[in-house]
Amino acid sequence: MKDWPTLVDIERAAKQIAPYAHRTPVLRCSAIDDIVGAELFFKCENFQKVGAFKFRGALNSVLSLDEKTAARGVATHSSGNHGAAIALAARMRGIAAQIIMPKSANAAKRRAVRGYGGTIVDCGPTLADRDAALAETVAASNAAIIHPFNDYRVVCGQGTAALELAREVSHLDAIVAPVGGGGLISGCALAMHGLSSNIQVVGCEPAAADDAYRSFKSGTLASVLAPDTIADGLRATSLGSLTYPIIQSRVSDIALASEAGIVCAMRLIWERMKVVVEPSSAVALAGLMENELALGGKRLGVIISGGNVDLDDLPW
Amino acid sequence: MKDWPTLVDIERAAKQIAPYAHRTPVLRCSAIDDIVGAELFFKCENFQKVGAFKFRGALNSVLSLDEKTAARGVATHSSGNHGAAIALAARMRGIAAQIIMPKSANAAKRRAVRGYGGTIVDCGPTLADRDAALAETVAASNAAIIHPFNDYRVVCGQGTAALELAREVSHLDAIVAPVGGGGLISGCALAMHGLSSNIQVVGCEPAAADDAYRSFKSGTLASVLAPDTIADGLRATSLGSLTYPIIQSRVSDIALASEAGIVCAMRLIWERMKVVVEPSSAVALAGLMENELALGGKRLGVIISGGNVDLDDLPW
Repeated sequence: MKDWPTLVDIERAAKQIAPYAHRTPVLRCSAIDDIVGAELFFKCENFQKVGAFKFRGALNSVLSLDEKTAARGVATHSSGNHGAAIALAARMRGIAAQIIMPKSANAAKRRAVRGYGGTIVDCGPTLADRDAALAETVAASNAAIIHPFNDYRVVCGQGTAALELAREVSHLDAIVAPVGGGGLISGCALAMHGLSSNIQVVGCEPAAADDAYRSFKSGTLASVLAPDTIADGLRATSLGSLTYPIIQSRVSDIALASEAGIVCAMRLIWERMKVVVEPSSAVALAGLMENELALGGKRLGVIISGGNVDLDDLPW
Repeated sequence: MKDWPTLVDIERAAKQIAPYAHRTPVLRCSAIDDIVGAELFFKCENFQKVGAFKFRGALNSVLSLDEKTAARGVATHSSGNHGAAIALAARMRGIAAQIIMPKSANAAKRRAVRGYGGTIVDCGPTLADRDAALAETVAASNAAIIHPFNDYRVVCGQGTAALELAREVSHLDAIVAPVGGGGLISGCALAMHGLSSNIQVVGCEPAAADDAYRSFKSGTLASVLAPDTIADGLRATSLGSLTYPIIQSRVSDIALASEAGIVCAMRLIWERMKVVVEPSSAVALAGLMENELALGGKRLGVIISGGNVDLDDLPW
């Protein structure tokens, strides 16, 4: 616990990324407030660069490297937004980025990584394939690895979203965010704890990928094998060794959302808020709608995590 | 020309609607800037109440009625956003609203009007049916008619969108907006003229409903019969007797957009800006992409007019 990042670290991250990242808007929607029975303040990270909060953590990590390390380039594995975010952050710093991606990854995601100047390193579909490809890449290039979530630089960068939200909207009672590998939620929790606020942090997770929920409730880090959820950003097989203890200690609760509930919440956000969000982003609202969280009438910050979705393959 | 509303009228409208209407955000998108080759500032009226700029004009009109007139209620004809906007504005003032709608109108639009507390008066599909139903409704109730665009109270209310944009974003070179009946564009033009700015106002119209373009170029008010365009908000058969002269005198140019261009621009906005816009909203961007308007490198305000779209019937 002594090693955990503090508010000072998150503020340093906020200052470091400020010149390059968007300060995303907070939107409200009275129709959704009425449905949920609370006052919701949506922090729209779908408007962030790369279309996701992942850019905050990726950029903070890349900018935290010393000159000598940075010169060797960076590497990561990701079939989603983190890969694109690392590619863009590396381009901004003028260094190389190698992104390990399974050959089966979505073509749009591969285009995004290339569009931001990243080099894709193909790998097979299993975890072992991925780890082997990353090890080989790093052995050859000596590139610095930036893990998608199990890295304090990433956690601090992602936590800046909650810091901005809590400073913009006064008297929040809680911040609700989706949980995948736990980078975002642990960053949010550290930021709120550091502010010495009474703002609770609540995570929401697809019931079909409930490893964080089980870990949180049982006190033992659980995993899930190849979770089958529409929330493609939250398919991490387990929380990280760094993110889990923070979540266990600093998060108030984790709630589950059904697949149907995620699609329903996603459509509600599109129809009523007029914003394009990816399924993972709708998990927080779905969790609020499907559970009795004793948050009725409260002022709730909701992190909209991203907006990268295939418009030719919508779930309705 | 002496009778035209002035900046004072538009500022009065802005003050009148301010407590009830959203001050909508201005979004930017570097990817779209690169495609167009200009700096675009999108005024997102899709986030306005009712999901469209129409709320500004409807609310200003309803709030402008004296107590005695207001007590008799309001009536309008609209198969789209203006009807919903009048219904909500009337409910806010606590008066009745009767909306004349063809029986064939989109079910979602009918639900929206009812959802905001409006009473739907069914009519047949022709203009004559509509006018007869409105006359009958007004004869029975003595309700005040609020035309969708050919009304200075509506023009002033809609012009407040441009006023907000020009005051938020410094040094704009032009404001680009879609043209249907001409309420929005004439309000924008009056506001920019009143600011004594050098900000040009440029209209964009579907080529499949090019009556405003032809009117503007020929100097004679033209009409179009049952225009077949995906931009359902811009199917007005002609400009109004009040809006046309303002446009003729104060608008710099009108450009046309193809149907394919509208769909392409709409998808670009969804994918890159992460915002849900209706086809009519994409006409301005499509016009910029398809024409040589000598606006390269300029700072352009673009009015995103609305975001009401049937998610089960997308054009791709």
